[in-house]
Amino acid sequence: MSRKIIIDTDPGQDDAVAILLALASPAEIDVLGIVAVAGNVGLHHNADNARKVVELSGRTDIPVYAGCARPLRRQLVTAEHVHGDTGLNGPDLPDPAIPLQPRHGVDYIVETLMQAEPGTITLCTLGPLTNIAMALVKEPRIAGRIQEIVMMGGAYFEVGNITPAAEFNIYVDPEAADIVLRCGAPITMLPLDVTHMVQSTPARLDAIRALGNRTGAAVHAMLTFSESFDLKKYGWEGAPLHDPTVIAYLLRPELFEGRLCNVEIETASELTLGMTVADYWHVTDRPRNATFLRSADAEGFYALLTERLALLP
Amino acid sequence: MSRKIIIDTDPGQDDAVAILLALASPAEIDVLGIVAVAGNVGLHHNADNARKVVELSGRTDIPVYAGCARPLRRQLVTAEHVHGDTGLNGPDLPDPAIPLQPRHGVDYIVETLMQAEPGTITLCTLGPLTNIAMALVKEPRIAGRIQEIVMMGGAYFEVGNITPAAEFNIYVDPEAADIVLRCGAPITMLPLDVTHMVQSTPARLDAIRALGNRTGAAVHAMLTFSESFDLKKYGWEGAPLHDPTVIAYLLRPELFEGRLCNVEIETASELTLGMTVADYWHVTDRPRNATFLRSADAEGFYALLTERLALLP
Amino acid sequence: MSRKIIIDTDPGQDDAVAILLALASPAEIDVLGIVAVAGNVGLHHNADNARKVVELSGRTDIPVYAGCARPLRRQLVTAEHVHGDTGLNGPDLPDPAIPLQPRHGVDYIVETLMQAEPGTITLCTLGPLTNIAMALVKEPRIAGRIQEIVMMGGAYFEVGNITPAAEFNIYVDPEAADIVLRCGAPITMLPLDVTHMVQSTPARLDAIRALGNRTGAAVHAMLTFSESFDLKKYGWEGAPLHDPTVIAYLLRPELFEGRLCNVEIETASELTLGMTVADYWHVTDRPRNATFLRSADAEGFYALLTERLALLP
Amino acid sequence: MSRKIIIDTDPGQDDAVAILLALASPAEIDVLGIVAVAGNVGLHHNADNARKVVELSGRTDIPVYAGCARPLRRQLVTAEHVHGDTGLNGPDLPDPAIPLQPRHGVDYIVETLMQAEPGTITLCTLGPLTNIAMALVKEPRIAGRIQEIVMMGGAYFEVGNITPAAEFNIYVDPEAADIVLRCGAPITMLPLDVTHMVQSTPARLDAIRALGNRTGAAVHAMLTFSESFDLKKYGWEGAPLHDPTVIAYLLRPELFEGRLCNVEIETASELTLGMTVADYWHVTDRPRNATFLRSADAEGFYALLTERLALLP
Repeated sequence: MSRKIIIDTDPGQDDAVAILLALASPAEIDVLGIVAVAGNVGLHHNADNARKVVELSGRTDIPVYAGCARPLRRQLVTAEHVHGDTGLNGPDLPDPAIPLQPRHGVDYIVETLMQAEPGTITLCTLGPLTNIAMALVKEPRIAGRIQEIVMMGGAYFEVGNITPAAEFNIYVDPEAADIVLRCGAPITMLPLDVTHMVQSTPARLDAIRALGNRTGAAVHAMLTFSESFDLKKYGWEGAPLHDPTVIAYLLRPELFEGRLCNVEIETASELTLGMTVADYWHVTDRPRNATFLRSADAEGFYALLTERLALLP
Repeated sequence: MSRKIIIDTDPGQDDAVAILLALASPAEIDVLGIVAVAGNVGLHHNADNARKVVELSGRTDIPVYAGCARPLRRQLVTAEHVHGDTGLNGPDLPDPAIPLQPRHGVDYIVETLMQAEPGTITLCTLGPLTNIAMALVKEPRIAGRIQEIVMMGGAYFEVGNITPAAEFNIYVDPEAADIVLRCGAPITMLPLDVTHMVQSTPARLDAIRALGNRTGAAVHAMLTFSESFDLKKYGWEGAPLHDPTVIAYLLRPELFEGRLCNVEIETASELTLGMTVADYWHVTDRPRNATFLRSADAEGFYALLTERLALLP
Repeated sequence: MSRKIIIDTDPGQDDAVAILLALASPAEIDVLGIVAVAGNVGLHHNADNARKVVELSGRTDIPVYAGCARPLRRQLVTAEHVHGDTGLNGPDLPDPAIPLQPRHGVDYIVETLMQAEPGTITLCTLGPLTNIAMALVKEPRIAGRIQEIVMMGGAYFEVGNITPAAEFNIYVDPEAADIVLRCGAPITMLPLDVTHMVQSTPARLDAIRALGNRTGAAVHAMLTFSESFDLKKYGWEGAPLHDPTVIAYLLRPELFEGRLCNVEIETASELTLGMTVADYWHVTDRPRNATFLRSADAEGFYALLTERLALLP
Repeated sequence: MSRKIIIDTDPGQDDAVAILLALASPAEIDVLGIVAVAGNVGLHHNADNARKVVELSGRTDIPVYAGCARPLRRQLVTAEHVHGDTGLNGPDLPDPAIPLQPRHGVDYIVETLMQAEPGTITLCTLGPLTNIAMALVKEPRIAGRIQEIVMMGGAYFEVGNITPAAEFNIYVDPEAADIVLRCGAPITMLPLDVTHMVQSTPARLDAIRALGNRTGAAVHAMLTFSESFDLKKYGWEGAPLHDPTVIAYLLRPELFEGRLCNVEIETASELTLGMTVADYWHVTDRPRNATFLRSADAEGFYALLTERLALLP
């Protein structure tokens, strides 16, 4: 039986690839809906991009919602310097034809969880956690009904990317991340520690383009665009690939290694704002609230990604 | 023309008196609805109490909504030691017969503001600011449509009550208060500086009981109950009276004095958490975002309160 | 028997008056030495000013030391806008002829306390607490040997002067204040709550000038200069007078009222940095580490000050 | 010409090995004096241990001073669970016969720096930075006279050891570390990132014991004792070796790699207190105040250490 998920996302090239990977895997994953959130770029662009990606995949039956346009209490920080002005620069995708759903994304999350059997719906978060936090505050009972939250976010051994201490998704809305990390639902985190291990080298990108389908071409164009920032910064052969690890983890958890431990979010200090402090070595007795993944099998990951993208138009 | 308000509240004896004062003043104030929030006691009690008060006033046409059951990211702190286990101990009020509205209080606030003419609706907040903050994050456009936010909350010269630095309403959800204070809408604050000036002395309470109506009897019973905590603490002749100042300010602003200045909320430090730092002397160049009231005409306030309560059943 | 004190100071016009008040009271107070610290102006000026004041009083036998030129970990903030470029603008005092002692002020404090009988020496602090904190860290055993620390510093009901939350002396070196407040020695604080009650009105200043001695003329010139800042800010008839309250408290404690309570220093948050959070209403169970004075008899204070200044040349 | 250093230390088995390495290298390093500080264990033990190590090396001419017995403003945290109750458990060393110098360690540092030619003395710090910070506050002019501060302390990619975010030496006195990092002198940091790379495997320890001298035996006994904690924690073959990297860096800098970047100390938040936030990827424009070393040649390091220890008795 396939696993029911809601994808909360701020696409973003790597978000787009994650969505495509999920939509390419209907035997294992049932995407109930996609909710946009402000993050990599503003909410308007992200909601457009989510629909473009759905159309690229041919799955125009997937409903797309717009959630929150701002973080809880911080000024929105965006990342056009990485993703381009639309957030999805690179491929030439047509304007979306499918409509945005009229309901607010936060209400969609709340109502879907309250109407489904408890423990049957997984939230996959690829952006700031504003929508999930809002849903938890608006209707606290959802916490006990979530099957799992699998999030791309955080950094510990691999340190931050937007600041020396913080990863972008958490930094944009650290209070939201704090609310989510304390909610009591099972949580699995895919931090930079993992995503920096699955680098999109030229050979790996070429293999995707070589699939010959329009999805492969678009993914190649997306990642070629977005990786230029990290290649310049780190001087590596390939750029980190972030959000698709969330979907890969659902499909093939054995590709990843990590540990259940306490993870808390720094919200009090500007210097370390948004840091995900993981007690990976269990030196405190704080509650173990998240599985913090630390490593990934990069070859296995790219094999999976490429194989699945081949199944799309 | 009467002023349209939504009352956001966690009743609370003094909240109840504020609601009664508003409902007793239909020529000046049009209460569109009442929204409960977790605060003095849990949300369930507060939603019950709001309906009890509406029924006491005879205005069973006023819709009552339940908002958020928890603060944004803090554990809920309550004040049964002041208000009693139901939050409204003192008078013997029947269980409410009017229904709670099915819509979530946050959605009621958002939709009412979005449907009305901009600048025509005032939010009167008597408890923690969770609902207002949630509404602002869910639909940021409401900020530009609010006529004014008039809040009971904060303390500056008069220092805190729940901690040495913080007043209860702000302390319970300091992040919510921060969101509200930064939202850009006109804000007027009735802090402890004001409410400690309008003390419910025996003579003033007796005058209310002497009105002879059931409302006067109930108000006397409520305030006699709730004031015992403060009388013991401060050793004063009468206890502070908090929330009714918000409505009194709408009715008779000339009873109050204060200053437009910057007010920020401490959210980073445990020691001063929830403090409302008011730049009353303009020693910084931070933006002047709130009118911080500092003093009140106690005689005028109680004259107004007593005169209006006489108009209720 | 007179009480042995060391005065730690950053003169400053009001510091100067405090020193003069002490030197004018040899029956009750034995000034062992004066230690300068960076604060109102830089250390160099403060060390000069301390010697000028000693010479003005005719007590050239009092040794003057220079302590620390910088706060523990903050950039030095000074207050030339209040005190003038030399820190002691107003009267025309000659350059000091007596030498600065060669020993470091911190070492002087440590060695004096270690050599005297325990419990026989009081530290009177009129500026930032850098020197005292340094002495406590360098030689922790002095904490148990101090008779009392009587400090001008802090603000609670009366709020801050250098920021909306903080008083100048504490704000300049909040970590030093924190070290001192936690040291275990008996502490009495003269905060703005007190010093704003003893305002230097024209009549009071005139009475000092009318003494006819050179000290009275100099004090009149000093306070006329320094009060202009506060008169403009607060719009009061007279400016607050700060540091002399420390010496007045030694001479006539019955002029002051206050309470033993917990006082902690805010060091974690920029917004409230340096606030002295006094648990005046005992709402926490934190240890009661300081007597926080809250009010003063202004008439009694000025009578004492004027009477004693008359005894100087 | 040999490089003049002062070693500031809280021995500690690994501190002891660092001292021995320095004393075994007189051609390159001239140890002017050793100053003890509270850290791994209390000051009394550390001052004893420093003298025991000096005697073990046969260099009884090296003066040993006691500095500060407590951190600036935190309660002292010690590490007997790692180092044993004396701080130097393992070998059976006789009580020290050489005297502790009477001067305070902070004064020794200040006076040595003020009397020497500017730029000729390096401070090697192996423990909390209390003494150095105290010296910088007491006499700010020393900052411009220090040749270099080479410190064992901090953690970035390799995360903390005493908490999930902080390394022990910095955590014990984060305000002191902050003072030192901002002082303007050239700074080189040997963080856990480096020290976790030079693991004391059985083969490496055996090679030291096989030297056949009493120093080799003592070092073997020390490190066998102290490594048991880390072996259990990390499950590695050998434990990290910390403080000797400081001296190895002076002797053979080419064994280490790193980068000049901004390093700031977290002092505001309990969660991340004492973290050394290194802007290794230059994502901020904060000033580049320290060379943060990130990797070491473990084989080269142990070859150097073993070769030099062979030269001691």
